[in-house]
Amino acid sequence: MTWLDIPAGHPFGITTLPYGVFSTAADAHPRAGVAIGEHVIDLPAAVRRLAPELAAAVAGPNLDALLASGPGVWQALRAQVTTWLTDEVYRDLLSGHLVPAADAIMHLPFTVADYVDFYASEQHATNLGKMFRPGQDPLTPNWKHLPIGYHGRAGTVVVSGTEVARPSGQRRTPDGEITFGASQRLDIEAELGYVVGTPSRLGEPVALDAFPDHVFGVCLVNDWSARDIQAWEYVPLGPFLGKSFATSISPWIVPLAALGHARVSPPERTVPLLPYLDDEKAQPWGLDVRFEIRLNGHVVSNPSFTGMYWTGAQMLAHMTINGASLRTGDLFASGTVSGGSPGCLIELTWNGQQPLTLPDGSERTFLADGDEVVITATAPGPNGTVVGLGEVRGRIRSASVG
Amino acid sequence: MTWLDIPAGHPFGITTLPYGVFSTAADAHPRAGVAIGEHVIDLPAAVRRLAPELAAAVAGPNLDALLASGPGVWQALRAQVTTWLTDEVYRDLLSGHLVPAADAIMHLPFTVADYVDFYASEQHATNLGKMFRPGQDPLTPNWKHLPIGYHGRAGTVVVSGTEVARPSGQRRTPDGEITFGASQRLDIEAELGYVVGTPSRLGEPVALDAFPDHVFGVCLVNDWSARDIQAWEYVPLGPFLGKSFATSISPWIVPLAALGHARVSPPERTVPLLPYLDDEKAQPWGLDVRFEIRLNGHVVSNPSFTGMYWTGAQMLAHMTINGASLRTGDLFASGTVSGGSPGCLIELTWNGQQPLTLPDGSERTFLADGDEVVITATAPGPNGTVVGLGEVRGRIRSASVG
Repeated sequence: MTWLDIPAGHPFGITTLPYGVFSTAADAHPRAGVAIGEHVIDLPAAVRRLAPELAAAVAGPNLDALLASGPGVWQALRAQVTTWLTDEVYRDLLSGHLVPAADAIMHLPFTVADYVDFYASEQHATNLGKMFRPGQDPLTPNWKHLPIGYHGRAGTVVVSGTEVARPSGQRRTPDGEITFGASQRLDIEAELGYVVGTPSRLGEPVALDAFPDHVFGVCLVNDWSARDIQAWEYVPLGPFLGKSFATSISPWIVPLAALGHARVSPPERTVPLLPYLDDEKAQPWGLDVRFEIRLNGHVVSNPSFTGMYWTGAQMLAHMTINGASLRTGDLFASGTVSGGSPGCLIELTWNGQQPLTLPDGSERTFLADGDEVVITATAPGPNGTVVGLGEVRGRIRSASVG
Repeated sequence: MTWLDIPAGHPFGITTLPYGVFSTAADAHPRAGVAIGEHVIDLPAAVRRLAPELAAAVAGPNLDALLASGPGVWQALRAQVTTWLTDEVYRDLLSGHLVPAADAIMHLPFTVADYVDFYASEQHATNLGKMFRPGQDPLTPNWKHLPIGYHGRAGTVVVSGTEVARPSGQRRTPDGEITFGASQRLDIEAELGYVVGTPSRLGEPVALDAFPDHVFGVCLVNDWSARDIQAWEYVPLGPFLGKSFATSISPWIVPLAALGHARVSPPERTVPLLPYLDDEKAQPWGLDVRFEIRLNGHVVSNPSFTGMYWTGAQMLAHMTINGASLRTGDLFASGTVSGGSPGCLIELTWNGQQPLTLPDGSERTFLADGDEVVITATAPGPNGTVVGLGEVRGRIRSASVG
């Protein structure tokens, strides 16, 4: 389908075409790119030559201008790139703007405005409720009425590959003593992130069906979590330092347009929803996305996003129903994806009581210094193709304090 | 002391010199200004003429460059402005760059990076605990060990004078029914906000004594709160839509340098603090700031900041102890100031059970459509002067949804 040589089943085939920001040793300016197979299209250079009317949308050191340009430009650009890669006429012209992916240094793809983290997996919320609030209903009474979310720290969202320093902080020992030191329960959370392009006005909620008008695409998120810091701090105002030290995102943003074949119905709602959240008659935004989590190269879990209780469209409708406005670059994440198998270690090891054994014979309850976590995901594309979401990767270095 | 005619006791006298962003009908470009009495200095114009070496720090449509320029420039600029206003030599030169304050249209003074809201008043936390978690200890076990905080929505921070639309959302009735509609318990929260200038590096905590190296100054904050939405949503991950619809800040940022005479010791700590929070041997950053809250022109409360349990320096040290980095434009607020008298209606009316009666005979439990709230504050300056923090003002308009 494309004249470019791409291995069959490659996650970045012609049906994916994700956007990222890269530089190379030869040209250190971060700029927009499109991943295709083992190459990256140098987007500003290609657009200047082949579609100059779109040049403003791909200018600058990141994707901010593209995100802000809105669905019309997103569609036009994707159509252009698809044409370049499928029509032999463009082979010579485009080839000069292809960079080997191995030479691309990836950067944070956009300026993160506000970061919101949801809690949309019933399995995850149930398991965490059992561990953190034993003796109570694991799901709080509000859980099936609204997608619970909270704001995280936008300034510490980092791109895949950034080392993560183990955080230090206050913890309470089982016998009630307050101690300070490096987190002893450092965890991952595998999540799907939604990247907002089109802003909205203060006071004007965004309806369920306006989701694709505002959301540009998705990325993978590893919402690193220090469970011991979190457990001591989070009542009554929610997670803070247990989360704010770092959140890693994948460098490639997959546009919603690539996920048309991945759309599925969310699970049956067991509690009636208020109209602004009721998607029974709408085209639902459940997504058949399959995750793989590797710890030091070893697959430890394969969560599925398919059964997530709340969809991205519902998260967006809820987040704005009070009139809160959206800005270009807002990022909201699903919360840990724990369908089928868990998306975090605290569930995998049941609060540290059932250690994992890695192939080298070592055991893990939570992350050790030097551990590397890689989260990948794929979704079905048209005609049996695979749409890859790339990967989010991070290695733990030892604490600098405590 | 200054050649400019300023009424005695004016809150924006020569010892205040706050920074803001203004435009006028004659020149619609937002630009930096300094308030002095009933005038505003057009800062870029004055600096170009009188201190061109500082021009870069006051360039642009807001205070972002000044915030980022660091303590050396902050001191140099304040010294310059003080000299211009006190040395007769500058009278003619500066007079051409003075704009009547009445002609100044004020704008959001800086780009808000991350917004964090603390919960630093023992009186407020105790009262809220009694109302929201009856039958339990009003202060959670962590309260005196760490300054509790959470991230709010940076994108909905608005400048004083911006109308606030009543938010709609989910509420639970006393008999357990889930309903949707405009908030019936719309409240204010009078707070002090700290504006970060100098950024910090990921992984490197900011120590207590580095507070003035990073914090540029303070503003007033009205953290509007929809108590009914908040009560239903906030367990287990904290406040979200009950707060995220709008947060108003005063247009004038008072530099820390103006608050030297306002520094006081915080209350005696009844629980020993971990070293990173222990300010007993440091110069403490308690502040003698007195608030006044007016509802439709009528004073309803006079909270004092003096007895706040946690200081701004402690909030900053805590916020970064896990390695979270600071960005220029980060805003963190104290939480409701309820010393002496409460900084919010839910406390003033004891959860709506004891209505206020206004001079026009009307009663209030929470805010009505059309209500206007004005929060002002002052602190002691040198030689008996008053340092004003200006005002944060907002009027409620009716809900657009629900």
